[in-house]
Amino acid sequence: MVFHETTMSSKDIFEGKIIKVRVDKIRTKDGGESFREIVEHPGGVAIAALADGKMVLVKQFRKAAEQVLLEIPAGKIEKGERPEITAVRELKEETGFTASRMKHLFTFYSSPGFSSEKIYLYMAEGLVSGEAEPDENEHVEMVQYDIDTLIKMIEKGEIIDGKTIVAIQVVYNLKMNNEL
Amino acid sequence: MVFHETTMSSKDIFEGKIIKVRVDKIRTKDGGESFREIVEHPGGVAIAALADGKMVLVKQFRKAAEQVLLEIPAGKIEKGERPEITAVRELKEETGFTASRMKHLFTFYSSPGFSSEKIYLYMAEGLVSGEAEPDENEHVEMVQYDIDTLIKMIEKGEIIDGKTIVAIQVVYNLKMNNEL
Repeated sequence: MVFHETTMSSKDIFEGKIIKVRVDKIRTKDGGESFREIVEHPGGVAIAALADGKMVLVKQFRKAAEQVLLEIPAGKIEKGERPEITAVRELKEETGFTASRMKHLFTFYSSPGFSSEKIYLYMAEGLVSGEAEPDENEHVEMVQYDIDTLIKMIEKGEIIDGKTIVAIQVVYNLKMNNEL
Repeated sequence: MVFHETTMSSKDIFEGKIIKVRVDKIRTKDGGESFREIVEHPGGVAIAALADGKMVLVKQFRKAAEQVLLEIPAGKIEKGERPEITAVRELKEETGFTASRMKHLFTFYSSPGFSSEKIYLYMAEGLVSGEAEPDENEHVEMVQYDIDTLIKMIEKGEIIDGKTIVAIQVVYNLKMNNEL
């Protein structure tokens, strides 16, 4: 039985447009006190999408990384929005594609040591191309690669976004098991 | 050519023991302004380790997720510490295992939309068991599973930590390609 940390008190530090930050004082196993710095995040979706046998990715500048990253389409869940609706919306906004089916694969925490962010991973099926509808504050560029190339790009350090690595490996395993 | 966001000004919000938070005012592509909420994190390591053909994981309560998660051994890089040293240290602390070789697989951002955290993923080879040396503020419990079981646990939503999903998929692909 693993110990659960009881919150003794909680201090709000910051309320931003996307994240909130708080520090919890917790009871440790030996009866002492410790602190946990927590980032609250509304959660996001990420979409594995294949068109003509190639995976759809976007290039986007990420301020936290201070570089352009190659990622699968993804975005923050708006307040009250169901994640599958977010997935349909973000895929359209960032790539122009609409999907006949948005299949939920699984959901995971991006970094549970300090962040509450959950990422809902979807597989988009039956893609039809169209016009992208980018957010005014974002600038993304769509690219497509075959799955074997993407696996090599992970090994070479050319794809360095966690959710994108997860999605590429899922698609690779489906392909290797002839389930694609 | 993807647009790079130039920082016009930056405001420090919080300096914790593990994370720092700042808000950057940036120049958008159309010449306007926007804000980016950034969590600075020193980075961490995660270790894929197999002993007797089974992968080594730890159960740990995660305050940000308010639940016990099943994760591969992992930990924060201390100031000035080389990541491979962190990997050796954390594997020993959390599981008692020492490795004859700590092989770097690749490095990725856990959530680059708002966090600078990079995770250095290692494969530990030549494991020798020993006594765990847990941190006083942490309580972890070691468990081992074969790789096919772990793949099913991801699909069933029983493993929901991003870095752990990445590592399991890497080990599964090595096994499928007879490279393990």
